[in-house]
Amino acid sequence: MSDTTPVPASQLGMRRQNLALVLRLVATHTPISRATVAARSGLTRAAVSSLVDELITTGLVREGPATTSGRAGRPGRILAMNDRGPAGLGIEVGVGHLAVCVVDLRGDIRVSRRVEVANARREPTSTLTALARLTDEACAEAATLDLRPLPPVLAVPGLLADRSGTVVHAPNLGWHNVPTTQLWPGTAPAKVDNEANLGAMAELWTGHAATDFLHVSAEMGIGAALVVDGHLHTGSRGYAGELGHVPIHPEGPPCTCGAHGCLEQYASQDAVLRAAELTERALDADPITLLTERAAAGDTVTLQAIRRAGDALGIALVTAISLVDPAAVVLGGAYAELAPWLLPHIRNQIRSRLTVRPFDTEAITASALGRGGPVLGAALTGIQRILAAPGTFDAEQPPGRQSTFCGSEPPVE
Amino acid sequence: MSDTTPVPASQLGMRRQNLALVLRLVATHTPISRATVAARSGLTRAAVSSLVDELITTGLVREGPATTSGRAGRPGRILAMNDRGPAGLGIEVGVGHLAVCVVDLRGDIRVSRRVEVANARREPTSTLTALARLTDEACAEAATLDLRPLPPVLAVPGLLADRSGTVVHAPNLGWHNVPTTQLWPGTAPAKVDNEANLGAMAELWTGHAATDFLHVSAEMGIGAALVVDGHLHTGSRGYAGELGHVPIHPEGPPCTCGAHGCLEQYASQDAVLRAAELTERALDADPITLLTERAAAGDTVTLQAIRRAGDALGIALVTAISLVDPAAVVLGGAYAELAPWLLPHIRNQIRSRLTVRPFDTEAITASALGRGGPVLGAALTGIQRILAAPGTFDAEQPPGRQSTFCGSEPPVE
Repeated sequence: MSDTTPVPASQLGMRRQNLALVLRLVATHTPISRATVAARSGLTRAAVSSLVDELITTGLVREGPATTSGRAGRPGRILAMNDRGPAGLGIEVGVGHLAVCVVDLRGDIRVSRRVEVANARREPTSTLTALARLTDEACAEAATLDLRPLPPVLAVPGLLADRSGTVVHAPNLGWHNVPTTQLWPGTAPAKVDNEANLGAMAELWTGHAATDFLHVSAEMGIGAALVVDGHLHTGSRGYAGELGHVPIHPEGPPCTCGAHGCLEQYASQDAVLRAAELTERALDADPITLLTERAAAGDTVTLQAIRRAGDALGIALVTAISLVDPAAVVLGGAYAELAPWLLPHIRNQIRSRLTVRPFDTEAITASALGRGGPVLGAALTGIQRILAAPGTFDAEQPPGRQSTFCGSEPPVE
Repeated sequence: MSDTTPVPASQLGMRRQNLALVLRLVATHTPISRATVAARSGLTRAAVSSLVDELITTGLVREGPATTSGRAGRPGRILAMNDRGPAGLGIEVGVGHLAVCVVDLRGDIRVSRRVEVANARREPTSTLTALARLTDEACAEAATLDLRPLPPVLAVPGLLADRSGTVVHAPNLGWHNVPTTQLWPGTAPAKVDNEANLGAMAELWTGHAATDFLHVSAEMGIGAALVVDGHLHTGSRGYAGELGHVPIHPEGPPCTCGAHGCLEQYASQDAVLRAAELTERALDADPITLLTERAAAGDTVTLQAIRRAGDALGIALVTAISLVDPAAVVLGGAYAELAPWLLPHIRNQIRSRLTVRPFDTEAITASALGRGGPVLGAALTGIQRILAAPGTFDAEQPPGRQSTFCGSEPPVE
């Protein structure tokens, strides 16, 4: 018998659990009355009042003006998530861009910054300093909206060492063992995560996807993330969600990884650009915009390149769907923008190859978040942590210490 | 925000949870004293005594003779899982066999029956009646051991409709929409599950595998099952763990499913037998024994057929490991017996193709349970249900109703 001994039940933590329950109800059903919270939670009105008072004190929930429900009794005050105060701060290093995003407790994007810049083979400290400068601009704007960003969550296109924030390997950035949390010039990031994982969580948290789905995205490489029962499946070593180097044609062209016929040889951004004969493009033009323009114009070479990518993605997805049986597949990043031309080929492969346990190909869709998914997922991570455990969230910092919330100290010029 | 509202905490169910905790401790550490149960559970001695009394009354736990621990105080009585009374009953329809297995509460196999018989394209009622006869023999023998089998759990090599017990599709049996629970002549099965799933759970429950692993087995078809955090990953529609029809060589030979180059074209039992030129074998010879004998004798054609299967399995596993990142891969069923010749080729493929996030190929192993895994998993399912929720298990049935525990009524000849 395996030893998975459960822990004994106790009353400890019950208030914290109920605090989270009430906050989740307010978050999901904003605006909502105390009475409705009591009815939906199964808690007594007295218990709800005490819990709501705590949530108001910590700045997570605010009360609206008194309203009358039309029934007898005291007029109620409507509860809503606070649109000021604590805010999620997402920051992102991409191969070709830097991005910052601030979301309020309702999950709404309030501040957004993105600059296109070549970060491949750039010194990590230089890249992070530039991102810190962008973060400060965003934090300054957030302050004018009465928002106080939490410590940032950093999205990177690479493989992370568990929890330490060290990027073990980001081949398209040229990063190896980069200790991002140490190099970051401001308040240390609360978390550093792979951009594909964060893109997937953004889909989940914004309600665009089911709670069981596979998210496949392309920036420079190909990223994948598996969400099961509303949770990211990280795998036994944190390596789950690798799809770029699965074999499509085992005897196919050699790959940079040493194997042959990997998915990235057909469906990475570079592979598509090469096949579309766009490798000699001007560096300042956005390559995906270039591709979509040519595809929209009916350029045969471009359409063939996209078809080759779609067929390869479809073959990889046949295996993924067979093994994992997700409710949906979401195409993120550059794939979202290429979806009008990519999706038909993916769906054809699925239809012709997945016959034993057919899959409704309409469940394969393009992300509505596109290339903005990862940085939004990073920002929402902070909010989700508060929603999951409001009992461990510190009450409002005194005004004089607001700067410690900010993503970084002012950069030294 | 997605609506995954937690339920309110309450004291309800706390006793049941603690009952399960105590039973799990006894199961994992048999024999164990009340004092040790108290120390390991964090519960008071009084609470443990009350819970243990309930477990003894329901026949799940028994007390040994009084012992002195050498310390001061009353002599304690050692607790152990009851090796009489409630027992798990697993029954299995294979393409080429029927099997029954009875395990006691300790998980030990007490009665085991297996007959080789061709069930492909046989009338389902006829197959199930033959299995019921075998089940009655096993139940009669279990009765002589003071064991009272729970309602059976049935293992089938097919796709199940969720919870209803209807086998939607078992291509190698020729079954389509077979309502097994209705056709079964005895006490309705408590559960009907896919044999690959049950084989995987047997690995988990007998402690031979990690809590995160991929189980790949071959009987006539190829079955796979994914265990994550000690739980079977069933997928959004219950279809997870399909590996037989993933594309290995997308332009390869046509498959019965309508696609091309599926794994079963290279690594199913039939594909290996065909490649080994053993298709005209006598029907009464066990084909896997034939293969292992020839491989052991160094027969070139047989070794090449196994290599072809191993290479294809390796390619499928590269994708599976990349996507899911299991801690281990267990080869069950016929693969377990072919492992000495199969494993080196599988490992070679993994080593040469999984370079970005390497996988220790020693973590790919042959199941110790071999072809007996699924029926053992079926039998252990009943025991695990009791371990998980002893509070919902009925106390001993009065002696006159013991026959309702048995897998089936005597078959009508």
